[in-house]
Amino acid sequence: MNTRARLVQLKGIPDDRGLLVIGESGQHQPFVTRRFFVIRDVPVGASRGAHAHRECEQLVVVLSGSCRISLIDAQGKDDLTLGSPLDALYVPTMVWLETKDFAPGTVMLVLASHGYDPDDYIRSLREFLLAIAKV
Amino acid sequence: MNTRARLVQLKGIPDDRGLLVIGESGQHQPFVTRRFFVIRDVPVGASRGAHAHRECEQLVVVLSGSCRISLIDAQGKDDLTLGSPLDALYVPTMVWLETKDFAPGTVMLVLASHGYDPDDYIRSLREFLLAIAKV
Repeated sequence: MNTRARLVQLKGIPDDRGLLVIGESGQHQPFVTRRFFVIRDVPVGASRGAHAHRECEQLVVVLSGSCRISLIDAQGKDDLTLGSPLDALYVPTMVWLETKDFAPGTVMLVLASHGYDPDDYIRSLREFLLAIAKV
Repeated sequence: MNTRARLVQLKGIPDDRGLLVIGESGQHQPFVTRRFFVIRDVPVGASRGAHAHRECEQLVVVLSGSCRISLIDAQGKDDLTLGSPLDALYVPTMVWLETKDFAPGTVMLVLASHGYDPDDYIRSLREFLLAIAKV
């Protein structure tokens, strides 16, 4: 990875009753989760995200299906495909994130370190690039 | 509901980019999440769960598909079907929970208030019924 984001291997326990995937604060993510959100039913061709967070850290897990994720931060850029519930993506603060190319039936889970605060979002790429250039 | 468990309506934001479902500590669940787990690929006829927690609270969300949930606590019993990502089930401590009849493709998310502790589980129904009879 070129950005400060990193892939995290979650714990998987497959048996004859199905697949159990486990993530725990302090082991798989460096924060406790105060908000979660789920994205589903994304139409072919649609993209989501396109923002960065000033204070909020996130763990992204594609529970079913797959999608492409683009990241930008002060260190560089990454483009990757998430397509396994065992491969989580930890996204620290001040990382621009966009998601696209959702396969039909994709279910994406995001765990967030903070509650919702509209002032925590940077929604303009130009503003974000200016902010990381100053660091 | 007859038990102390309760259904919680999560926030849904549908638009032309898909469905966003949001849950936040303090609003939709009375705990911050220190562990999460996901159950997938459950074969037809398999059941899961069949335990209670002494200290751990949980929020159960069926993100895709559906399944049946049976609950027992000191107040009574409940049997319900969860089949929408907007309908979460809050499960307090000392509630026996079993899940079954997973539709193909079902993805279940559970948010937990505590990290993993084997001593927090009561895995014997007999032991559980004795424990709640004493309260």
